[in-house]
Amino acid sequence: MLEIEIKAKMDRPEALREAIRQMGGLLRGKEDQEDRYFCHPSRDFSETDEALRIRRVGRAFSLTYKGPKIDPVTKTREEIETPVGDGAEAGRILERLGFQERATVLKERERYRLGEFHVMVDRVEKVGDFVEVEKEGSSYTPEELVEFLASLGVGRGAIERRSYLELLLEAREGR
Amino acid sequence: MLEIEIKAKMDRPEALREAIRQMGGLLRGKEDQEDRYFCHPSRDFSETDEALRIRRVGRAFSLTYKGPKIDPVTKTREEIETPVGDGAEAGRILERLGFQERATVLKERERYRLGEFHVMVDRVEKVGDFVEVEKEGSSYTPEELVEFLASLGVGRGAIERRSYLELLLEAREGR
Repeated sequence: MLEIEIKAKMDRPEALREAIRQMGGLLRGKEDQEDRYFCHPSRDFSETDEALRIRRVGRAFSLTYKGPKIDPVTKTREEIETPVGDGAEAGRILERLGFQERATVLKERERYRLGEFHVMVDRVEKVGDFVEVEKEGSSYTPEELVEFLASLGVGRGAIERRSYLELLLEAREGR
Repeated sequence: MLEIEIKAKMDRPEALREAIRQMGGLLRGKEDQEDRYFCHPSRDFSETDEALRIRRVGRAFSLTYKGPKIDPVTKTREEIETPVGDGAEAGRILERLGFQERATVLKERERYRLGEFHVMVDRVEKVGDFVEVEKEGSSYTPEELVEFLASLGVGRGAIERRSYLELLLEAREGR
């Protein structure tokens, strides 16, 4: 499956929430997510632009592979995912196979629905506030997502293609 | 978790079923299992004596890592397992990570309970008929399993430490 979405940094998440409300957006849910990212035993994911993670939302776990980004503006990429019953055991399996845990990204996510768009308002620990937008279906262009963000008051300059993992690692290294 | 179990080849599975019945064994279930085994991208599992598989039983999937065998008689080894919701997606994730499918082992398994022992009577496609025995708890010796097998009429000479995967690959290569 292709995951077509765009992400932008926000300095004032309250202004965004207000814009979503005014456009008739509905809060669909709020959750804490814990994403454990792993390194490959014989491949440098930071060079191949791939990622492997175990996500926990409440007591539910999933295993996700993300392929390289294939679009210059959005963070569109192949995404393959399956629920897993036991996240700790899944992590131990990866470790035995030589995958080492790289970092854990913790975030609070609010999920809104605005017409055909899914809007996620994320507060990412040690990284900051972000908005992510996805649209259902596959027949649309990245530019549509950029225009939709603009309609929420988020300019093109705020668009961020780096992943939360990359941003967290950069913040740690003081870049 | 340590998986402490022993396996033996059977030429006459009917005689074993009869022995189980006479000792009061109860048939707990019968199922078709499909085990897809994968190769590691940078490690030779046949040398490290490890295994990674996705098992399907009916519509339920699990992901299992098996460490090297640590006992000279039985096939005792570390086993780490988690249910996975989508076996096909889990397989695709492994393939993207460089794990290649090695072979698929298909078997019909009958599961019996005999006191503290779990007895599995397996018919493995292209490999043959086998019996596997496990005991609950951890405070017992491999010799107990050997003696239990003998009580079912299965001699020490029939004990097989090679995995079904190894046996299948050897059968294919005509060894």
